[in-house]
Amino acid sequence: MAQRILVLGGDGYLGWPTAMAFSRQGHRVAVVDNFAKRRWELEIGVRPLVPLPTLHERAQAWHEVTGLEIELFVGDLTDYAFVESVFASFRPDAVIHYGEQPSAPYSMIDVRTATYTQANNVVGNLNVLFAIRDLAPETHLVKLGTMGEYGTPNIDIEEGYLTVNHNGREHTFLYPKTPGSLYHLTKVHDSHNIHFACRVWGLRATDLNQGVVYGIETDETALDPRLTTSFHYDEVFGTALNRFCVQAVVGHPLTVYGKGGQTRGYLNIRDTIQCLGLAVAHPADAGELRVYNQFTEQFSVLELAERVRDAAAAGGREVVIERIPNPRKEDESHYYNAKHTKLLDLGLEPHYLSDELIGSMIDTIDQHAGDINRDVILQGVKWVPDKLRDAREVGAAAGR
Amino acid sequence: MAQRILVLGGDGYLGWPTAMAFSRQGHRVAVVDNFAKRRWELEIGVRPLVPLPTLHERAQAWHEVTGLEIELFVGDLTDYAFVESVFASFRPDAVIHYGEQPSAPYSMIDVRTATYTQANNVVGNLNVLFAIRDLAPETHLVKLGTMGEYGTPNIDIEEGYLTVNHNGREHTFLYPKTPGSLYHLTKVHDSHNIHFACRVWGLRATDLNQGVVYGIETDETALDPRLTTSFHYDEVFGTALNRFCVQAVVGHPLTVYGKGGQTRGYLNIRDTIQCLGLAVAHPADAGELRVYNQFTEQFSVLELAERVRDAAAAGGREVVIERIPNPRKEDESHYYNAKHTKLLDLGLEPHYLSDELIGSMIDTIDQHAGDINRDVILQGVKWVPDKLRDAREVGAAAGR
Repeated sequence: MAQRILVLGGDGYLGWPTAMAFSRQGHRVAVVDNFAKRRWELEIGVRPLVPLPTLHERAQAWHEVTGLEIELFVGDLTDYAFVESVFASFRPDAVIHYGEQPSAPYSMIDVRTATYTQANNVVGNLNVLFAIRDLAPETHLVKLGTMGEYGTPNIDIEEGYLTVNHNGREHTFLYPKTPGSLYHLTKVHDSHNIHFACRVWGLRATDLNQGVVYGIETDETALDPRLTTSFHYDEVFGTALNRFCVQAVVGHPLTVYGKGGQTRGYLNIRDTIQCLGLAVAHPADAGELRVYNQFTEQFSVLELAERVRDAAAAGGREVVIERIPNPRKEDESHYYNAKHTKLLDLGLEPHYLSDELIGSMIDTIDQHAGDINRDVILQGVKWVPDKLRDAREVGAAAGR
Repeated sequence: MAQRILVLGGDGYLGWPTAMAFSRQGHRVAVVDNFAKRRWELEIGVRPLVPLPTLHERAQAWHEVTGLEIELFVGDLTDYAFVESVFASFRPDAVIHYGEQPSAPYSMIDVRTATYTQANNVVGNLNVLFAIRDLAPETHLVKLGTMGEYGTPNIDIEEGYLTVNHNGREHTFLYPKTPGSLYHLTKVHDSHNIHFACRVWGLRATDLNQGVVYGIETDETALDPRLTTSFHYDEVFGTALNRFCVQAVVGHPLTVYGKGGQTRGYLNIRDTIQCLGLAVAHPADAGELRVYNQFTEQFSVLELAERVRDAAAAGGREVVIERIPNPRKEDESHYYNAKHTKLLDLGLEPHYLSDELIGSMIDTIDQHAGDINRDVILQGVKWVPDKLRDAREVGAAAGR
């Protein structure tokens, strides 16, 4: 059944392909964006691999290619008057919320980017919750979270909830989270706020704890070059596999942080699109916060680098793996077993990582090889400032 | 050993008595405030029972009475340049952080007060963490949280951490929290951010999950009428026992929400002062987030009302208990067993609630009976707006 679907952050890497996919499936789609991401790119001096048309140009191209309309609302989610006006005029059945600052390194640059990230994400999400409550209480909120919220606990990661037996009694909690950056913390804060909105106001929401997304193409981006999505290979906005493929194309060593035993969940961008379709097709009940772990496979970062090295070699590109000092503070060797069956139960058909897929990503990137700026691949954002790290090491050596 | 102690929110109900207590113990004390609380009072039309001098006048009175100095910094914790300047000039050994919007009902008034509360508290606390990291990394942060963060889980509430056995493996998490208002959520967000700062930057912090505080007098407020603290009896800023005592004085029924089985931890304001002293005297290690549950007794709200009714009757005041519809959304009958041994182990000597204490509070309040405004006792802030509640009830009746 056709729904009215509002995509927040519709100018982004995942937002734009998601909007196109729902539009092509016959839904009425509107996107919201304030172009903050394009400003952060200017701020740190990076750009997507393929130059992006403006959002207006992309919507126009979409109309020319498919005859379909994607409506645009330009404004900021932290401005409640704007959010209210969007909900009042569009009256969505489902809201897909990608509209947040999505980079862990960006959140760790300094106090300004840290507090901006937390206020921007938390306040924007709260405004969406209030707009749903007061203007469209039956709307299904589909919120993008991240697997990075969980951290790396020494027990299995369940899908959103954990039943605890303690001193002879039992309680089911939202799964307790130990995230690895001030960005990831915003997603934890959001989840707690959404849980409250479901418990107290009876809203319906699905929280998607997504793994690291890779890939450059979906069925819709492939329709026309103007419909391409925002593909980043820099350390601040690029994701792991995407960065490795770009490094392979320019012959840059594949840079692995520390031991490389950091294990995470991964998925193809085509599966992100599938998962969003499944989440929207199966709305949560009133008062329910559903939580899905949205990824298809787990790899260590070293395994991932080895996969790219080998696929590149098969295509005649020799590239080495280089372990560099870890700019983050994280366990580099740990237990990791994250459940991810709920989306499979709903019908997800995964596109698993294959050498062919990596080879095809490398070939696509190669068409833009001349545009790759090697200088932005490493950005040098550190989780612990040098001065503090040095002081802590001196303190530890002195037995403090 | 004398320390340099910075009290954030030093104009408040607990901040001002805390500052005086540390000053009298020989520490060098500075307070920070932006007087936001006095503005919120104007906003909703309430005032403390006893008119307060300005903070400058209080510090002057403190000097006249004791010969001691309490230094003042006037500014906003959400302004990093201000926070930086305070840390650069005062270089605290310990920071006691009360400087947040502290009212659950205020946070539930509307989208504006909700987003203000979350941004104000979370950003202010983040700024404090960055200032400690970059200017005074050995400083001990003593942060005020609340027992309300935990909610009412069906298992014992431990002090800050929960060890979980799951599928044959074990992990210790920050105790998972299910708070009851958008204000309480800010304290949960803060705790997660502080935990990150301890884990990643090696900061030292103590998180005090405080129960509901009652009382009007400490050793220092009793020294001079000008040193009184901010005592509220309105529904937005007043705490349970304090409000009941005021209701008893004016002959207003003691208003209990719903069944009154809501059980919470309580403590005397004198014990708050003691607990802060113990926390500061025993700093956390570098990298450690200590968590204490700071209360001395647990009561249901109905038990508390009965205690006040009986103590009032003993003093010749007849007052009835009235159950009113619960404006909050909370369990009115639930399991509740919250651990609180760590501060006792450090030497806390509780002032338990007694009929004499209630009688003495009532007598103190009676001296200001002429200033009590009955109209502000109930403020009518509802957790679920009437319109939404009606819609949900119609939906439930129709079997949706």
